[in-house]
Order: sequence, then C-alpha cells, then structure tokens
Amino acid sequence: MATVFPSRRVRRTPFSAGVEAAGMSVCTIYNRMILPSVFASQEEDYRHLKTHVQVWDVACERQVAVQGPDARRLLDLISPRDLDRMAADQCYYMPAIDREGGMLNDPVLVKLAEDHFWISLADSDYLQYVLGVSDGLGMDVHVWEPDVSPLAVQGPKSDELMARVFGEEARSIRFFRYKRLAFEGQSFVVARSGYSKQGGFEIYVEGSEHGMPLWNALMKAGEDLNVRAGCPSTMERVEGGLLSYGNDMRRENTPFECGLGKYVNSPRDYIGKAGLMARSEPERQIRPVEIFGEIPPITAPWPLLADGRRVGQVTTAAWSPDFKTNVSIGMVERSHWDAGQKLEIETPQGMRRAEVKAGFWI
Amino acid sequence: MATVFPSRRVRRTPFSAGVEAAGMSVCTIYNRMILPSVFASQEEDYRHLKTHVQVWDVACERQVAVQGPDARRLLDLISPRDLDRMAADQCYYMPAIDREGGMLNDPVLVKLAEDHFWISLADSDYLQYVLGVSDGLGMDVHVWEPDVSPLAVQGPKSDELMARVFGEEARSIRFFRYKRLAFEGQSFVVARSGYSKQGGFEIYVEGSEHGMPLWNALMKAGEDLNVRAGCPSTMERVEGGLLSYGNDMRRENTPFECGLGKYVNSPRDYIGKAGLMARSEPERQIRPVEIFGEIPPITAPWPLLADGRRVGQVTTAAWSPDFKTNVSIGMVERSHWDAGQKLEIETPQGMRRAEVKAGFWI
Repeated sequence: MATVFPSRRVRRTPFSAGVEAAGMSVCTIYNRMILPSVFASQEEDYRHLKTHVQVWDVACERQVAVQGPDARRLLDLISPRDLDRMAADQCYYMPAIDREGGMLNDPVLVKLAEDHFWISLADSDYLQYVLGVSDGLGMDVHVWEPDVSPLAVQGPKSDELMARVFGEEARSIRFFRYKRLAFEGQSFVVARSGYSKQGGFEIYVEGSEHGMPLWNALMKAGEDLNVRAGCPSTMERVEGGLLSYGNDMRRENTPFECGLGKYVNSPRDYIGKAGLMARSEPERQIRPVEIFGEIPPITAPWPLLADGRRVGQVTTAAWSPDFKTNVSIGMVERSHWDAGQKLEIETPQGMRRAEVKAGFWI
Repeated sequence: MATVFPSRRVRRTPFSAGVEAAGMSVCTIYNRMILPSVFASQEEDYRHLKTHVQVWDVACERQVAVQGPDARRLLDLISPRDLDRMAADQCYYMPAIDREGGMLNDPVLVKLAEDHFWISLADSDYLQYVLGVSDGLGMDVHVWEPDVSPLAVQGPKSDELMARVFGEEARSIRFFRYKRLAFEGQSFVVARSGYSKQGGFEIYVEGSEHGMPLWNALMKAGEDLNVRAGCPSTMERVEGGLLSYGNDMRRENTPFECGLGKYVNSPRDYIGKAGLMARSEPERQIRPVEIFGEIPPITAPWPLLADGRRVGQVTTAAWSPDFKTNVSIGMVERSHWDAGQKLEIETPQGMRRAEVKAGFWI
C-alpha cells in the first residue's frame, strides 16, 4: 500500500509527535485524521495490549459539541435511545440514524450538563447531519467541533497507570461513567471506556497544547509497567466483537441488524422512529464467523455462500493468535445465522470454509 | 509517512486496479476513498500533465443524489447561488454553507432533470447536512450516494483522446456543461471540467463495473498521445489558484473570504442568507503568496507575519518548476492583502520571506 501525501487536510493530532517518535509504521485515516494502525507488528502490538498497558492516540474520535437552550430538544429529535435517565456523569452508546433507520454513525454521547453534550464520533461527519437538522428547524443551539482529542489508556495495567497520573480516584470510575480529573492544573473528562476488551479509559483532552505533556507524563509514569504507544487492534477487536462503522455497518444497515436494538427505546417521536419500527425484525444480522485456511487482508466484503447462494458477507477478518484461527465479523441472513451453520466464503485468494459461531471469542 | 492499513472503511475505487498497475507511489484519503497523489514523482507527473494527457481516478468526488418532488425546494433552501437560470446541461459551482455562512464543502452541482441533481463533493460528508435538513423538515425527496465515480481526463491532448473514445461530439462540450455520451452501450454524463488548469473532462461513470473497461479503453486509445495515469498536482493547482476544501478553507471561512462571493446571488430565503450577508465584507481573503527559500512539506497552517504580528496564514505550498519559486495559497488580513506586501512566514524549518502577489501564476 502507498504512503500518505502530507497535507493540512489529512490532519495530524495533538499526539502525533509522540506517535511518530514511538515508531508508527502503518496508519489509517479516520475522520480526516491520522490514526495509528501498527507500531511493532500487528501480533506484537496485540500481545502487548493484552499483557501490559498502552496509550492510544484516538484524537480521530472527534466530538460534536451540542450546547444551548435547544440542545436536549435536538438530541431527543435524533436519538433512538431514551435520554431521560441519563446520569450527569454518564456516557451513552447512541445509535445515529436517518429517517429510514439507516445508520449514519456509531457514536457515544457524553453528557456534560443538561444543555451541553458531546457526541463522540466514529468515522463519518455526523456533525453535518446534526447541524442540518438544527439549521433546517432553526433551533437555538450551537453545533461545532471543539478542540477535544481523546487519548485512550487500554490494557490490564490501565488502572495502575491512571492512578499514578490522575490519582487514586481514577480507579473508582465505573464503566461508561466519567469523572473530571486534574492533570497539571487542567480538568479533563476521564471515562472508563475504549475500543478494546482489555479494560481502560478515555481521556478527553481539551486543548491541543495539553496533548504532548499528558502523553509524556503517561509514558514516564508507566515505564516499569512496560507502557507503550498502541492503537486499536483489529485482531483483538474482532475477537471481542467490537464493530467498526464503515467496515461492519453503514447507512444500509439498521441498529437491529447490528445487534444494537436494545438501545432503541426512546418514547419520543424522534426522526426515523417509524422507519426503524418497520425494520425491527431484521432479515440479516451481525454474527461472529470463523474462517478456515489462510486469508489475505480484507478491503471489500467477502460473500458468504451456502450451496452457491449468497447468504451474507464478511467485512472484517483477522488472524487470532490466541484462538489460533481466523476471526471475522459477518452480516448473515436469517436462514443461515444460527450457530454452527457451515458456509463457504469467497476471498480474493479463493474459496474458504467458514462457520457461524455462537458468540464472539472475547 | 506511514503506509495505509487495508480495510473496507478506506474504500478502493472502480479504477484502483488501473491505478495500482500504473504504479501509484503516494496517495491520500478523500471522502474515505483512496485518491492517488504521486505516480513517477511530483515534478514528472506535473510536467506530463502540462504536456500530454492524463487519466485521473477521482472517484473520491462522491455524488450526493437529490431526487424527488421536493428536490428543487431542498436545493433552493441550501444554495446561496440562484438556480433559476441553470440550464438542463449545466454544472454549477455552488458554495455549501451552514446557517452562519461557514463553508461545509466546495461542491459542483450537476442538473440531471428538474427533480434530479448530483452534488459532486469535495472532502466532507455534505450528504449528511443535506439529509439532516431534509429529514428535519420531512421533505419529499431522496438523498443518497449513488454508484457514480468520476474519471477525469486532463491535459492539452484531452480533446483528442476524448474524441477517439466518445466521438467527435466530445469536442463541442462547453466549459461546465455536459453531454450524455456513449461508451460500450452505456451513456455517461461527460462534463468539461476538472481540477487542473490544463483543460479536460470529467466522466461520471455510473456503475462500478464500467470503471476498468473505460480506463483501459482510454489508455489504449491514447498510446500515441503518451497518455498516463495521473492525479491532481499540488504544484499545478496552486500555480492556478484552485482551492482545496479542508486545506485552504473550512467551516470557519465564508465564500466571501475565498473569493467566491460572485456565486452568492440567490434571491431566496435560503439557510445562511442572513449569516452570509452579515459577513459580506470579509476581514481576510484568499491570496497567492510567493515564498522565498527552501520549504518543507506543509501539514499545518504556517503563520504569515508583519512586524512580528500575525496577519494571516498559508495552507498549501509547493515548489513550482515552471515559475521557479514556491507558490502558495494564503488567507491574508485586509491590512496586508494588497499585492506587493512583503511578509514573513513561519515554517517548521524557520522564517522565510514571502510576498503577496497580484494574481495566481496560472
């Protein structure tokens, strides 16, 4: 694959200096920002993540700030999830959909105040949708991208590292809750969350100038914990069943197809409610799929076949060093989505055997 | 710079096989799609573009299809440009703005029928804004990304090559007009347009399966014209003053700041009209800026200084082989935007002398 042309449009992050010094060798572009993909090697990065603690530049999880008298009204209009019981220190997974229930993003909503929220984005400019609804209806609310860049601390030693830098209070943060914790006189939203199954935190770094001081402090405090620069691991996230917007689901998919139906519970008349309700019994759904034999990197969906008929597709696939097989995420038709179904899969290097699993590998 | 991690999320195009066979060495990601940046070398690609004819994979210029009874009503609501006189075969540059007049994209509008348009995008998901307005107001219109991938033919021999593949009729297409021309039984919108000053066409290839047959036909028909795979050239586009959304302007800029005020002429009450009118006398504006001495690649704005005070910034800069100087695009404050102003510019490799020019180099 080619290298990336330097330009302002493909944005560096407040942590890029640290990432480059740490030897990022492969990257991707996510929300028009550089996101590291590999440092040492995919497998070495994966093993380290599962054993020690890593610091991840996930600045590309851009925030959509929604603030003003109509902030809650706007969110109620776009959220399929009921926000009434959302606590003052809570982060909510919130499906982002269009009028027909098609997914536009896969964000986490962070409540800062009754009239102030961040929508922490997956890879699409959902800001433009929120703004379009707000501008179209002339709502009294501001919608913008603030200078907030998440830095993730992930891995089994995350609590220890965070306690050293942010104090013991970090340990008591509950899953998908946050506290405001101090670093060098600044107060940051620190949530127990992140795009791995190894435990950890996301620090919403407000103010780019604080990026490298915090990066350096975490690296220094974690020396004896074997802390390293890391990044989301495809191997690890597929083992754990963490979906990726743009890879595993897109606008043509509903939350129900993605196993996210439990987040569709708002009693309000939000945009897309009728569309979603009409599609609440999906004909296809996300499934873990094991693939046997050698496979190449995946850059386009691979068809899943039963008796020569297409019954789904796989969108992310990787070798799992721990489970010693190829793990993958598929979208499989109802007729063939039960665990144990034996299928074939068409890869660019030929047909392979595949099997629908009962659950992700974790 | 690192290489790009293979995934479905960073999309390949219908022409990727051709691009790879032609030896793309550097790329960028644009609308979550691969856009070639360099084949042989920046300078060699530039010289070839100015001398012969190139075929460009610009599939990343994604289309927003807007179709239905409310299509025109929706466009009138979002367009600062008067669409009343738009001809049936016309392409219109259309500033895309928010309620305050801030730019959300830099697209070209293509009229297919009175109730069917394509908005051909620069690098942002403006589809989501259009959809947000439409969904918010419950309009009777469909908004989607069709399977349409532009392929550009650029350079002084473009007319000859196009005539060979699409017939002599191609030569009579006027600037920013299109004709529907046939290729192997398919009818494609072919416009005289493109992101260079060397002349040429953009073919809106409907149906990914037609991508490589057309690519191959152009390469074969142009052998004796010395046709090659090419791509937008930073050197050439800065010489010619072609702006890049995300680089040279963003949401914080208005069309007036970008010299696009002439396209703000709609008599209707569109979204952002009041905001734009309040900002119609800009305090800063796009200017050509010459930079003296050696410069590194630019990945963040470089401040322009006068007597130590910041009076603007440069956002794209490149060496110009033809003009034998560094050409650049700046956003300069009114106090210092006149031609001949001598400024300093702060690059990562130190201060350089700079001068505001009367016009782009062309």
